[in-house]
Amino acid sequence: MSDTLELLKDLIRRPSVTPEDAGCQDMLIERLSKQGFKSERLDFADTRNIWLRRGDVKPLLTFLGHTDVVPPGPLEAWQSPPFEPTLRDGKLFGRGAADMKGSIAAFVTALERFLADHPEHRGSIAIMLTSDEEGIATDGVVKVIDVLERRNEKIDWCLVGEPSSDKQIGDVIRVGRRGSLCAKMTVHGIQGHVAYPDIAENPIHTLAPALKELTEEVWDRGNRFFPPTSLQVSNINGGTGAENIIPGEVEVQFNLRFCTELDEDTIKRRVHAILDKHKLNYSLQWRLSGNPFLTSQGELIEAAHAAVTKVTGRETLDDTGGGTSDGRFIAPTGAQVIELGPVNESIHKVNENIDLEDLEVLSQIYETMLIELLVK
Amino acid sequence: MSDTLELLKDLIRRPSVTPEDAGCQDMLIERLSKQGFKSERLDFADTRNIWLRRGDVKPLLTFLGHTDVVPPGPLEAWQSPPFEPTLRDGKLFGRGAADMKGSIAAFVTALERFLADHPEHRGSIAIMLTSDEEGIATDGVVKVIDVLERRNEKIDWCLVGEPSSDKQIGDVIRVGRRGSLCAKMTVHGIQGHVAYPDIAENPIHTLAPALKELTEEVWDRGNRFFPPTSLQVSNINGGTGAENIIPGEVEVQFNLRFCTELDEDTIKRRVHAILDKHKLNYSLQWRLSGNPFLTSQGELIEAAHAAVTKVTGRETLDDTGGGTSDGRFIAPTGAQVIELGPVNESIHKVNENIDLEDLEVLSQIYETMLIELLVK
Repeated sequence: MSDTLELLKDLIRRPSVTPEDAGCQDMLIERLSKQGFKSERLDFADTRNIWLRRGDVKPLLTFLGHTDVVPPGPLEAWQSPPFEPTLRDGKLFGRGAADMKGSIAAFVTALERFLADHPEHRGSIAIMLTSDEEGIATDGVVKVIDVLERRNEKIDWCLVGEPSSDKQIGDVIRVGRRGSLCAKMTVHGIQGHVAYPDIAENPIHTLAPALKELTEEVWDRGNRFFPPTSLQVSNINGGTGAENIIPGEVEVQFNLRFCTELDEDTIKRRVHAILDKHKLNYSLQWRLSGNPFLTSQGELIEAAHAAVTKVTGRETLDDTGGGTSDGRFIAPTGAQVIELGPVNESIHKVNENIDLEDLEVLSQIYETMLIELLVK
Repeated sequence: MSDTLELLKDLIRRPSVTPEDAGCQDMLIERLSKQGFKSERLDFADTRNIWLRRGDVKPLLTFLGHTDVVPPGPLEAWQSPPFEPTLRDGKLFGRGAADMKGSIAAFVTALERFLADHPEHRGSIAIMLTSDEEGIATDGVVKVIDVLERRNEKIDWCLVGEPSSDKQIGDVIRVGRRGSLCAKMTVHGIQGHVAYPDIAENPIHTLAPALKELTEEVWDRGNRFFPPTSLQVSNINGGTGAENIIPGEVEVQFNLRFCTELDEDTIKRRVHAILDKHKLNYSLQWRLSGNPFLTSQGELIEAAHAAVTKVTGRETLDDTGGGTSDGRFIAPTGAQVIELGPVNESIHKVNENIDLEDLEVLSQIYETMLIELLVK
């Protein structure tokens, strides 16, 4: 069994469901202190965060990840228990195998091999880990990066270990992510009896034309780097349960994933314009989950391209689709940010797994990137 | 204190929340047996029903009502306890005072006075009471009338004691009611992540244009007797609660109150046409709560008009608005059906009440109708 697989199994055994860390970070602090990493615990509220750094000089390469995992879901649907790492059909099964304990393990052993071969590499290496990326994440990386910014500790290159790969390890890297803007809206009406609609005001009826327009609006056409901005209604709820009551309000939640063609204020302005045009009586709470970010060029991307091709013989695709990642908190500091990690097919599902060969290949890709960036 | 008030207080003290009867019917059976009424208990499932009849010949006048009341709602909002009949400001307060124990008391004492004066009246008099009018009502009047129909016991005139009056006692009588057709629809989509809308199918988005059209459709323009058919959406629910999940389905409940311009099949056809035009993938369950009914002329209406004018000096308005009543089960048998009862302002609310003078006036109106129909 390889060191990487050994470490991954240790991590998986720890049931670190958000925001629990279950001792992952302490274990890694101890392991990496042997490699000369200075460690800093930066816990906030119920979230555990660590900042490990080796060296003081620029350029600083940081590996960013999370030790927390999503809940396993229905246990009876797992072929082997989610927190018992199990080998089967050339894969390792367990919650977090792909998202993202596999990449943590792959990077740590890549780092150890790299330091053994190149102890006098240039620049510095850091590792930032949080135990809340999957949840509300208000006390995770967003707070850690704030600490670093205040003391002017600048990251040059940030390698996020999120599972970016589509079908084969390294076939896709994320070079940016869309922004995410959430809205919680309540449309107000007047409750009444269905038989007396004239003295009531059905907010579901008032909402209907505005809902149609919101969901049919073309926000932009995307651009070279990003797919088009998209609005999706996630929740709609109105009514007392009784079939003869006109409700007094209806609640709608929707989310926009937006690209660099738009900004938060423009979106808000356009949404309000649609709602006001239909004369809705409404309250709306906005929440910006993150702005779009993009690393269109630079050493980090070049190192990733070169490493994937050297190790796998394949090209990699630069992508900005999908959800978001904690990289959105790092990008505004000026760092180059990319995401490169395991195949994401099984993430957040039952029977999450990572291909054993992928795990080793990923570790080699990371090691090659370290050489490209800090030796050559 | 009048006999009517005394009887009403007795009825109110009995906490007969649907489908409970709390002894109301037994008490009335005992009271009316002294007047020569033969009683028949026609209980079904958890619903108590009685059929009381005096005389075998036509024409048969029937008083129809319910002994059940809706729940009181928040007790702290009542100035006096809902099941403790309380005099205040010239009114009697208590759950059921207006809907509809007031009219039951008013009719029973009107009947007693009438029989004392006119023991040899023509025709027959009956009283039908149920303990489930306010609820699902599947075991109430709908079953009792079926028993009568099977043995060919025909009602000529049915006086429903539901609270029809608007501002002054007797100012409005219902001469018919709209039909009520309920629909429970599920629109099917494909669940997914908001960041990956292309591999999901948001049923809220598919629903939006159909919902707009359904709620804006003009079903008909009403007619001489009825207000226009109206569709109201009462409930809409879709979503997992999470803001980043596209739900797999959305449920909508709506209700049509329809007039004699339309029938059940035509409405269904038009609704399905709208849904199919928008290519919705949906399941829909229909439930006919009742067809419209109308008594446009006849001795019963004339007697009601005459009685109101004689007793109050005022004219009465023939109306078909508002909700529905158990009269819908009687009308298809060929009976003339009208509803005449207390002012309905406080029904189903806290601090339900009936004006003391209204109570006496109502009893006189009923007594005058008995004379108009069975003596003159």
